[in-house]
Amino acid sequence: MKKALILLGCPESPSQTPMTIYANHKLSELGYDVTVASTPSAAKLLEVSDPEEYYIKNKIDIESSLDGLEPGKYDLLVGFAHKDAAISYFITFYHILQCESIALVFEKDHQLLEEFENMVAENTDAKIVAVRAFHNPTPLRVKFDRVLKEL
Amino acid sequence: MKKALILLGCPESPSQTPMTIYANHKLSELGYDVTVASTPSAAKLLEVSDPEEYYIKNKIDIESSLDGLEPGKYDLLVGFAHKDAAISYFITFYHILQCESIALVFEKDHQLLEEFENMVAENTDAKIVAVRAFHNPTPLRVKFDRVLKEL
Repeated sequence: MKKALILLGCPESPSQTPMTIYANHKLSELGYDVTVASTPSAAKLLEVSDPEEYYIKNKIDIESSLDGLEPGKYDLLVGFAHKDAAISYFITFYHILQCESIALVFEKDHQLLEEFENMVAENTDAKIVAVRAFHNPTPLRVKFDRVLKEL
Repeated sequence: MKKALILLGCPESPSQTPMTIYANHKLSELGYDVTVASTPSAAKLLEVSDPEEYYIKNKIDIESSLDGLEPGKYDLLVGFAHKDAAISYFITFYHILQCESIALVFEKDHQLLEEFENMVAENTDAKIVAVRAFHNPTPLRVKFDRVLKEL
């Protein structure tokens, strides 16, 4: 079974937890065994967001997961990249895993969005889904669905 | 069957969508038939957050739901109150429904939190769950669980 890792570096965006559930659900439908690696705060949001663990089956801590990480451990990396810290995590995981990767870049500020997008583009060959968004998940969802079709 | 209404006036907080799922889940366990009334943006976040509608069974638009609202239509009102607009909605729904009510007030800024709490306290006799929180849902969840035991 193909394995996918969803990476959450920060909890601040109101779209992130909902989009994590959505991405987990879509990737499961595509046949991936999905794991979510996150900071403790982002993990707490996932717990209240899915109290019966109906959607999210595997959760690991982002820091401690770095220890056992190696090329081939996952077939797909999907990272939420909407803060410097989150992008740094994404770049780190990308270079260790060396697998197909998708960065979800979203920000309400145009300039920051471009900055984040450039950071990912300059440091990885990941597919980039970039949208100017904050609390409306639809543009991100639509573009994410589109990039999944290219996998 | 007892009926509960969860009210979402704004989508901005990262805790709101996860806590809505949680509240819906807990109230269902307590035997309530739960409906969520929300702005269109908040509704979109709920949709991606629960793509199979496993948790949220009934969703209505906050504006159009006001038309048919009357005393006795719901037995419990739970409102997220973390912006002026959301608090205005809560106060309006409270006075029309005249049922047992809980306001969930959360803000990272101490002064705003107090201001929001006072707005609710001065205009309603709702139970108030107030916490200084932004992206950590735990304090809100713990206090919400506590107030549910008093119902």
